[in-house]
Amino acid sequence: MAIFKKPRVYLDYAAATPLRKEVLKAIRPFLEGNFGNASAIHTEGVVVRHAVEEARERTARALQVRPEQITFVSGGTESNNLAIIGTVESLTREGRAYAAMEVVTTKIEHPSIMKTMKALEAKGVVVHYVEVDNEGFVKLDSLRALLNEKTVLFSVAYANSEIGVVQKVHAIKKMLTEAEKKFGTKIFFHLDAAQAPLWLTCQFDRVFADLLSLDTGKCNGPKGVGLLVRSRRVTVSSTLFGGGQESGLRPGTENTAGIVGASVALELSQKDFKKQAEKVSNVRDAGIEHLLAEIPSAILNGPIGAERLANNINISIPGIDTEFAAIVLDKHGFAVSTKSACAGAGGGESLVVKAISGDPARATSTLRISLSPETTFQNLKDLAKVLKSHIEKMSKY
Amino acid sequence: MAIFKKPRVYLDYAAATPLRKEVLKAIRPFLEGNFGNASAIHTEGVVVRHAVEEARERTARALQVRPEQITFVSGGTESNNLAIIGTVESLTREGRAYAAMEVVTTKIEHPSIMKTMKALEAKGVVVHYVEVDNEGFVKLDSLRALLNEKTVLFSVAYANSEIGVVQKVHAIKKMLTEAEKKFGTKIFFHLDAAQAPLWLTCQFDRVFADLLSLDTGKCNGPKGVGLLVRSRRVTVSSTLFGGGQESGLRPGTENTAGIVGASVALELSQKDFKKQAEKVSNVRDAGIEHLLAEIPSAILNGPIGAERLANNINISIPGIDTEFAAIVLDKHGFAVSTKSACAGAGGGESLVVKAISGDPARATSTLRISLSPETTFQNLKDLAKVLKSHIEKMSKY
Repeated sequence: MAIFKKPRVYLDYAAATPLRKEVLKAIRPFLEGNFGNASAIHTEGVVVRHAVEEARERTARALQVRPEQITFVSGGTESNNLAIIGTVESLTREGRAYAAMEVVTTKIEHPSIMKTMKALEAKGVVVHYVEVDNEGFVKLDSLRALLNEKTVLFSVAYANSEIGVVQKVHAIKKMLTEAEKKFGTKIFFHLDAAQAPLWLTCQFDRVFADLLSLDTGKCNGPKGVGLLVRSRRVTVSSTLFGGGQESGLRPGTENTAGIVGASVALELSQKDFKKQAEKVSNVRDAGIEHLLAEIPSAILNGPIGAERLANNINISIPGIDTEFAAIVLDKHGFAVSTKSACAGAGGGESLVVKAISGDPARATSTLRISLSPETTFQNLKDLAKVLKSHIEKMSKY
Repeated sequence: MAIFKKPRVYLDYAAATPLRKEVLKAIRPFLEGNFGNASAIHTEGVVVRHAVEEARERTARALQVRPEQITFVSGGTESNNLAIIGTVESLTREGRAYAAMEVVTTKIEHPSIMKTMKALEAKGVVVHYVEVDNEGFVKLDSLRALLNEKTVLFSVAYANSEIGVVQKVHAIKKMLTEAEKKFGTKIFFHLDAAQAPLWLTCQFDRVFADLLSLDTGKCNGPKGVGLLVRSRRVTVSSTLFGGGQESGLRPGTENTAGIVGASVALELSQKDFKKQAEKVSNVRDAGIEHLLAEIPSAILNGPIGAERLANNINISIPGIDTEFAAIVLDKHGFAVSTKSACAGAGGGESLVVKAISGDPARATSTLRISLSPETTFQNLKDLAKVLKSHIEKMSKY
């Protein structure tokens, strides 16, 4: 019996991305040779210290901030935790009680936000969940109604990892600023930008955030590395305790290779994002149109056009076990997911699609198809064919 | 003018170690190809999931535990934080108040322990500092006197990163067990074993710990990776909030390359440790004898013989600016440190040597010379010559 090894079509770019060859090249010297501890005073240490600071400067240029506004951490999850808990903890050090603070977020956030909010609630912080519309956009009226003199932070994904909605960050910032003026307070704006660097600007003054969380494993950089970018007006307390690395905000021996790789990945992502987003969003739009035409029961989750992440397609096919469909697609060579990998690979509904639709049938039948820069319309047509055939087969039962 | 490029003699193995070639080989496929997210259900994910679980099994065999007792984290600092804070937080979830808990440690611990203890104190936990003798050993009588019905945790370095004292873990465990029986309580035993894998057994039942913290950057593995090993009787709460990775104890996309590299580094370290420790401790002892003979004002910090970490030499040279001496040695090709890199590369006394000696002159004049498996007695004789000449030069001023 012949085994046909089909070429794979990887359509889970939201979950993980391959290392760019330029990143691998930049990392290699720190795996093969320059192994010193960046905090050591000897030559082996100084070489590495310089590499870490050069990486910080390179990243700072890519994001248009000062190097000291950047803290390297172990990934997007840690960055989101540090941004949220670190900001609240810093305020407690100024004498503010947990119960005197309110934080606002949405119900469509990544688990590293949702669970962190639960941890804040356990401490006594009041967490409000702003309404989102049926495409996932924050409802500005709902946001206005939730902001008050106790509000210290608003946290939302720049681009949602499941349904790809890109928030209107300028309008949100404007509303936060209005509230700050009205109440004479500071309301910090945190953006979880893990999905952004390959497709959207992360230039700090163009996203209007006080706190920006990034994960380089999602933009062709190394896994296990992330960063937190801070504005000058926010103070963040460390959530890990130890040495004075990263200006005391993130103790532990610097992961030199990871940090160097992160800087190259972010630089190249931001250099290319416009061209790549234009190219990939064309494939996406053709793919969405084709999928919806071929599978009439499919419903698109999230918006269409420029306010959708360039590489995100997310459909629900009510009545279909999309977990099983994903496995069938995998056997035919297509790697797709149903929701965020961090939300669990197992069954269960998408909390994100539940929140935007209120429809359990839609929430339990999601399929996320996240494109790579190499994905072609033909790839998506081939996928649609397999998916359609699978659905027809299933409908017989 | 000719520039003589001298071969370097790296004597800061306690701060950072090079990647073993076997580790690099094991890591490579996950940098160059297998980039999937370990939580994804498709083939690219499953391949990586298997690699992570194989790495966990490999590590478990090396440490003689069950795979589920191992949690991969981002380094030794995070592991120490998770062990200490995670244990205390878990007890608060059982309804125990911070103020109803006491934790015991020493005053010679790494900053990732010392600062974490300060964080616990800020929450209301009472932290006691057990006395250590003039070689750094925990005084068992002092420990006995501090244990009471409120004690929940004792934390100490298996091998101290500055002065190399290897604690008598069996005697400590015996005393903790006695107290447990007396008070009808559980007193968990945490060992910071970051310095151990290359030179000491880390077989879990032979170190008698409930919680063992490791950092693979210190044993020829990747930086930015560590692990926490737990006994079955201890429950640890997560200190980061997010996805369900690492059985919910450590959220965030798995750092596949790092985890795979960690497992190989630990396996090989533990396979070789006896032979390496015997070889290196002979060089160490000859080196100590020679240094003390050549530099009569030098004082050895820490014990001699089998209870000293095989690769650790730490001397004080009262009256000498050893920060400057380290820079002079660096110019002559020797990489040494004055204290732990995490304790800051800058000036300031060694809190460890201060605690064992009570002598500010000794504490401000430390030199840590940590050997690699390749270090020869000749290297140390060459170092002694440069150091002696420097001291003689300085004495003229």
